[in-house]
Amino acid sequence: MSDFAALWAEIVAVGRSADGGYRRYALTPPELTLRDWFRGQAGRRGMTVTEDGNGNLFAWCGEPWAPGTVLTGSHFDSVPGGGGYDGPLGIVSAFLALDRIASPRNLAIGAFVEEEGGRFGVPCLGSRLMTGAITPARAAALTDRDGITFGEALGSTPTGQISGISHLSAFVELHIEQGRALDVPVGVGSAIWPHGRWRMEFAGAGDHAGTTRMTDRRDPMLTFAHTVLAANEEARLIGAHATVGRVQAEPNATNAIPSMVRGWLDARAADTATLDRLLESVIKRATERAGRDGTELSVVAESVTDEVAFDTELARRLSALLGDAPILPTGAGHDAGVMSSHVPTAMLFVRNPTGVSHAPAEGASNEDCEAGVEALARVLESLT
Amino acid sequence: MSDFAALWAEIVAVGRSADGGYRRYALTPPELTLRDWFRGQAGRRGMTVTEDGNGNLFAWCGEPWAPGTVLTGSHFDSVPGGGGYDGPLGIVSAFLALDRIASPRNLAIGAFVEEEGGRFGVPCLGSRLMTGAITPARAAALTDRDGITFGEALGSTPTGQISGISHLSAFVELHIEQGRALDVPVGVGSAIWPHGRWRMEFAGAGDHAGTTRMTDRRDPMLTFAHTVLAANEEARLIGAHATVGRVQAEPNATNAIPSMVRGWLDARAADTATLDRLLESVIKRATERAGRDGTELSVVAESVTDEVAFDTELARRLSALLGDAPILPTGAGHDAGVMSSHVPTAMLFVRNPTGVSHAPAEGASNEDCEAGVEALARVLESLT
Repeated sequence: MSDFAALWAEIVAVGRSADGGYRRYALTPPELTLRDWFRGQAGRRGMTVTEDGNGNLFAWCGEPWAPGTVLTGSHFDSVPGGGGYDGPLGIVSAFLALDRIASPRNLAIGAFVEEEGGRFGVPCLGSRLMTGAITPARAAALTDRDGITFGEALGSTPTGQISGISHLSAFVELHIEQGRALDVPVGVGSAIWPHGRWRMEFAGAGDHAGTTRMTDRRDPMLTFAHTVLAANEEARLIGAHATVGRVQAEPNATNAIPSMVRGWLDARAADTATLDRLLESVIKRATERAGRDGTELSVVAESVTDEVAFDTELARRLSALLGDAPILPTGAGHDAGVMSSHVPTAMLFVRNPTGVSHAPAEGASNEDCEAGVEALARVLESLT
Repeated sequence: MSDFAALWAEIVAVGRSADGGYRRYALTPPELTLRDWFRGQAGRRGMTVTEDGNGNLFAWCGEPWAPGTVLTGSHFDSVPGGGGYDGPLGIVSAFLALDRIASPRNLAIGAFVEEEGGRFGVPCLGSRLMTGAITPARAAALTDRDGITFGEALGSTPTGQISGISHLSAFVELHIEQGRALDVPVGVGSAIWPHGRWRMEFAGAGDHAGTTRMTDRRDPMLTFAHTVLAANEEARLIGAHATVGRVQAEPNATNAIPSMVRGWLDARAADTATLDRLLESVIKRATERAGRDGTELSVVAESVTDEVAFDTELARRLSALLGDAPILPTGAGHDAGVMSSHVPTAMLFVRNPTGVSHAPAEGASNEDCEAGVEALARVLESLT
């Protein structure tokens, strides 16, 4: 068994459901198990483990936050029913890459909390906190579906911005590729598409499904449905991505016209102007339909992230180091995107044959994962 | 204060939320409180209380199930966020009508369990059980959203068909009107539209919302949305009612294309042929769209109820007795519809100015409720 396969086997079953999907929400038992595993791996390698008061975990070869340290790592949490590679691959690969460096120094491995936003709704929460991109008070008040706040789950108000970030010389995140753009085992990231999440609330009039005449209805499910189709059409026309993956109806009863339907729009595009144009056209069509349906629409931006271009010179250098590895953008958000405003940042992507992500079919061969470890080791060695 | 207002005030707050909507699910604390109240009212009037082993509760003036008994009553349970009149008005009015009859005899008041299907999914569960329209085994296995079965909630397997039903000489259910058809305080029911609930499952491929190309997607939310709009259009074209009030997406995450969306179609029409035609055209359009989206559709009928015509002669007689009260059909299902295959059955409707039902705006004036009590008393007196 390769060293990758052996280490991977230690965590593969944590938080996995019968259907193969993972439920590793931040600060819930499966993710806490993985954090313990992280401490164990660091301990075995004689690394010091620190927490930053924001829920992020770090293992250090050398003095914590020493100037010139190179940070690598990723996250443990998953979306509901997600795959097992998204996040953990970057952490497992980091420990194995370290093992391949003769005398590692000024190196650290991080495990960021709540990267997916799957529990508290704001993605990259841990990296946003440590870079000051979200205030501790706002983060502390975010609630999960059971009404538990992030502050309660963490056990305290987060610390917020960490001054040590400015001492890091680079951050490198290795991640499973989330599309089918790679035809070699490993690629280098160039940029993250600008993207955002908007909560759309369609308010109508709750009423009896059997007795209310069709002409008397103000049914928000119709406006929601029209908007789902409009978002898809507009994204296709403009070459962007739009998804409505989450919906909530109230009272959500078979025999009642809903009083309210909430839908969350996830939209991404290659540049900010296109993303703005997409959102504008979706809201325009939703508003027109709301007028016909007698419903009302309100839209709240839950998170919007501008385009992130990683350090171009660094990407070029790593691509050359890895034998002209392809350089590719991604539509997914990452902690690397948040970190890149503060630290020279790079991403490595490992090939995913299905291209599927956020679902159980996500995956990578052990050979490609080994290649990822090898690439990460070479990158870290060249940076330290 | 009128005697109606006084008795109504005793139960008005039970199970009511801050927004005015009720959550009185069958066999949950609010409904159990109302059942205790029922026992108390019966006790005050010297009535014997029995249970039928199916969750239905009866109070008797005279020997239980004595030949020639006239049964009246309704249900306590509500849809999620429903109004307070739908069901309880028929029970409160029954006790007050009894008070207005000089020497009541051979009279019984019933409180049927799970009329709305709001907890276990099958409407009129109590009346279906006692008439043998559903088997005890099937009813016992129905589950609520927390996985509790009806058998567990009841504390035993239901008894099923009650032979005493054939001894009843009539069943009369007084109910809040669920539309705006009445321009006088009280009307008499003629028929219940045929209606049904179909669970539509749209299966697609779960994937990442940001990284999956639009052309690679098999997004079941699109097929669902198209079907919602198609059902609305087809129902309008054909003069029927169609509603999708309940939806569930999996994994229901903002940044994941759903792997599955479930939508429940509630459809009703004036006759069975129209209802069948409606369902056929909705499924046809949904299937066509599924072909385009690369998704799969399966449809399961959760409950389908044929047209119910109440006893025509009885309705005519009661209308005359009540000063030519209007005779009107309803699009809503009722225990009276289930009972009517076994007992001569009639319904009285009390005017609802908003026409709203299954929502907090449902209501009736105290004067109209008093008129309902008076009408029910005259009807029961004339039948016993």
